[in-house]
Amino acid sequence: MLYKQYQDIRYLLLESREDLPEQATDVPLDFLSIIESSGSSVVCTGDDHSTRRCKFRNLCYLPDEDHFLFFHGQSTILEGLPEDRFNPALLDFSSVKNHNTQYFNYIDVPSESARSILGRPTVISTRSLLFRRFNPSNIMHAFHDDLLPMFHTLRLITLHDSTTMPFDVQIVFMDNADHGSFSHLYGLYSSSRPITKRDIQDAGETICFREAHVGLDKSMTWYQYGFFEPQGPLPDIHVTSSHIAHFANFTRHRLNLTNQASPSTKIAVILSRKHNRLILNELSLSSNLAQQFNLKVVLVSLETHTAAEIIETIGQADLLVGMHGSLFIMSLFLPPGSVLLELFPYGVNPKHYTPYKTLANIQRITYHSWRNLNKDHAVPHPYRPRELGGIAHLDADLQGQITNSVEVPRHLCCRDPEWLFRIYQDTIVDIDAVISIIRSSPSETKPPLPPSVIMPSLVLDIHCDISAHSLRLGFTEPWNLELLDARLVQYEVWIQDVDSQVTSAWVLTRTFHDFALDSDSERRVWVRCVLDETLRGPFNQDPVLCNE
Amino acid sequence: MLYKQYQDIRYLLLESREDLPEQATDVPLDFLSIIESSGSSVVCTGDDHSTRRCKFRNLCYLPDEDHFLFFHGQSTILEGLPEDRFNPALLDFSSVKNHNTQYFNYIDVPSESARSILGRPTVISTRSLLFRRFNPSNIMHAFHDDLLPMFHTLRLITLHDSTTMPFDVQIVFMDNADHGSFSHLYGLYSSSRPITKRDIQDAGETICFREAHVGLDKSMTWYQYGFFEPQGPLPDIHVTSSHIAHFANFTRHRLNLTNQASPSTKIAVILSRKHNRLILNELSLSSNLAQQFNLKVVLVSLETHTAAEIIETIGQADLLVGMHGSLFIMSLFLPPGSVLLELFPYGVNPKHYTPYKTLANIQRITYHSWRNLNKDHAVPHPYRPRELGGIAHLDADLQGQITNSVEVPRHLCCRDPEWLFRIYQDTIVDIDAVISIIRSSPSETKPPLPPSVIMPSLVLDIHCDISAHSLRLGFTEPWNLELLDARLVQYEVWIQDVDSQVTSAWVLTRTFHDFALDSDSERRVWVRCVLDETLRGPFNQDPVLCNE
Repeated sequence: MLYKQYQDIRYLLLESREDLPEQATDVPLDFLSIIESSGSSVVCTGDDHSTRRCKFRNLCYLPDEDHFLFFHGQSTILEGLPEDRFNPALLDFSSVKNHNTQYFNYIDVPSESARSILGRPTVISTRSLLFRRFNPSNIMHAFHDDLLPMFHTLRLITLHDSTTMPFDVQIVFMDNADHGSFSHLYGLYSSSRPITKRDIQDAGETICFREAHVGLDKSMTWYQYGFFEPQGPLPDIHVTSSHIAHFANFTRHRLNLTNQASPSTKIAVILSRKHNRLILNELSLSSNLAQQFNLKVVLVSLETHTAAEIIETIGQADLLVGMHGSLFIMSLFLPPGSVLLELFPYGVNPKHYTPYKTLANIQRITYHSWRNLNKDHAVPHPYRPRELGGIAHLDADLQGQITNSVEVPRHLCCRDPEWLFRIYQDTIVDIDAVISIIRSSPSETKPPLPPSVIMPSLVLDIHCDISAHSLRLGFTEPWNLELLDARLVQYEVWIQDVDSQVTSAWVLTRTFHDFALDSDSERRVWVRCVLDETLRGPFNQDPVLCNE
Repeated sequence: MLYKQYQDIRYLLLESREDLPEQATDVPLDFLSIIESSGSSVVCTGDDHSTRRCKFRNLCYLPDEDHFLFFHGQSTILEGLPEDRFNPALLDFSSVKNHNTQYFNYIDVPSESARSILGRPTVISTRSLLFRRFNPSNIMHAFHDDLLPMFHTLRLITLHDSTTMPFDVQIVFMDNADHGSFSHLYGLYSSSRPITKRDIQDAGETICFREAHVGLDKSMTWYQYGFFEPQGPLPDIHVTSSHIAHFANFTRHRLNLTNQASPSTKIAVILSRKHNRLILNELSLSSNLAQQFNLKVVLVSLETHTAAEIIETIGQADLLVGMHGSLFIMSLFLPPGSVLLELFPYGVNPKHYTPYKTLANIQRITYHSWRNLNKDHAVPHPYRPRELGGIAHLDADLQGQITNSVEVPRHLCCRDPEWLFRIYQDTIVDIDAVISIIRSSPSETKPPLPPSVIMPSLVLDIHCDISAHSLRLGFTEPWNLELLDARLVQYEVWIQDVDSQVTSAWVLTRTFHDFALDSDSERRVWVRCVLDETLRGPFNQDPVLCNE
């Protein structure tokens, strides 16, 4: 095992030297001489440690000490660093905001000491992205905290414009987990296999990155887990339906899932849990859905299907149903127009646990929740381990309080016993209620938002003259107007009397007009195009002068 | 000529396809298909149009229309754009802040129209940097506005760590000037010849950039020219002596100027003007300097020397003297410990025109100015063209006012007649005064600032115990301490009583200490290393608990 990992890292080095000639020529034959004289460099963007990302030249990592080293030399650039990078840190090393176990920093070293400290380092010449996965054994966390932010960060770094080819970036997981059960997913996005901190430590070699991008862009995340306040959507959500669709399409491509025409039969997918938080009447729910809606019902779970199979199945689903849980993250792959129904056990308020509702809203997909209000249909498990909802370890009063409570009060992450007790209940789902909720779904699909905003360009050839208390104005429509799909084209015209400085504003729908004036004094004119009453193009930068 | 430029651009394309295999593999065989489906992308950094720089994928330029086009497609990323990129602009296209003739913007286009708009574009695959030179025919503007900002921007883009090899970036000047008289200097920094907008327009071909960096980093500039307020140093100056030294060394390397050991004879360089603003007793000044200071005096001017020769000569100078003027920008290349003396004509207050004084302060070089206070030693030229100080076109009153004024009042750029009248005077320099000023120079050299700040790392292995009202604390010094050159090593220790929450702070010079306590209750301890009383390392993130 030790030997194998060692080989892997050596292989990366060789690979980059032999297969990527561009980078090989960029790598000095004697890396140590270069780092000794030139040193490391860093350029960061972002205003604080939670928005900051940094790009390093010649960043080294000592596996035994778990230290990153920055060599200060002749060519060192330090750009975009905070006043105090220890308060609290240079940047968040995972996508989770300000989690104090997820900070990144480095140790300053004079470049003259490079040779004695580094020995014979392994040099990674390929552009690399280093970050910490947050909880890679949980599929929801894998997608929300790691894969989506990683994908978007890779796009920002490379501006890669293929929708099918993987990124030519070496991914390095600096958390302490091994490759994990979703390593297949984590490996989809890059042309080379990710390496983990464990791989580096097992190899026992100092490793230096010629170009290390450190940290993840957080703009693809939409949910916070309740470390500082009860869990909920993030205050500023930037991710859009087209971001999600782009990620889902890319992922499907990388899994070789062709976007099949959806089959003639409609499909419902039930997310089935096998060990806990069960739907006790799952079979009955399944057959009722099939009969009532004339659907083919498919049960999926991570115990019975691979992630790729689930992604493929969900990509064809018209309806997705299941008990609240991490597998709902697969709704990332739901097609437009589908309907999602999330079921909650007794005592759990759906309004307080909205990662998937928030996602569905972003995707513009119809979302419903159902909550078990019938205590008789809830089966709690007070004698299970506490992390699975057991409460036998608590004193009798507290146990009574929990079992008598009708709703879990809002709470912080991650060990609230009442929350765990309720969320790990099994449930007999009220099938009639579920069917009536699904029936209430609006039949029309929400139109996807346009991927980006296209603005009209400058109005051209503005000309005007004044005679007999009239200003005759004409201009040419914006260069890009004929390429755009505007419902309504208007022109905003501002006319300023040079003498009185009085300005009047007008809206035209044509490219010429005669304006009545109260005097023939000189006028200044600005014109801009406005599409659909919202997309405002630029005004002419210098005013056009109109004279008699 | 037309054909030649056309060839040049085609060559760039071929060059990048054949010599840069990495980029060639990255270039789709059918660029139009890619741009048609994927579109363009842009990622910007910076908070407003004056600090913003953008990186584009697939940015195209139509030479006939002088338009940049951005194609909105499936893979389009828009990141870091302002709410309204027309108010006033996306970014400054030159290094001069907010100059309204120097704005950059692009026109939005749907990607489906790429094929019909672009025809058969020339595709530049090499990473490119696009900007406008501000005034490339003036050596001062060339260095301050273009070359220094360009060099630094190239460093930020590439994190290039060679101190001698040119940058592998295609430079594109989007101003309207031709290559100009300093094209040799402008071509020093890149491995390929820069192209100008005129080249592109002469070739008449649409040109698309696979990776276009647009705009210059302004942090290397130190002076504003008086467009909004009278000229003077910029309010925030970020450029340091090591930035200047790095630029100067790199430039010398690219000019094949070896850093010769300075000759045994001391050298004075006189910046000699040949056409106007003359030193009328230049010969006498020269011989007096030689005699008084036992110096070899060298007269240099752009009429008699190439820029490279001047750079070489100034690199060995102990003293630099001349009339205020653009050639003083060559003081960028003065060695440490040299002395600079700037002479000003009658009526011109040196305090109001400080580009070179500011530079000398940045470089930590001794700066002096001398001002002609003797009107009899000033020779004005009222009958020359107005841009060379002529005032004959003004009415007699105004002429009288100007000739009787003893000092040019502060003024805006760029056509103030009194300023031009005075600054274009010739001068008989007071040689005794000049000699006495030079004699007054401090003999010691200001030490250069350290290139970057090296902080101590975490204090290690903090351990403590409490017994009999005493807290025994020990720890291990920071990992990087033995690599650093600290005069004074101290440790800041914070001790918090867990019961009372009272915290006390201490400074130690050793890595162990016994603290007297008023009780044996539990304590929390934080320790950090402080070097030379200013460089504060990180505290241990989690407090160390001390118990009995």
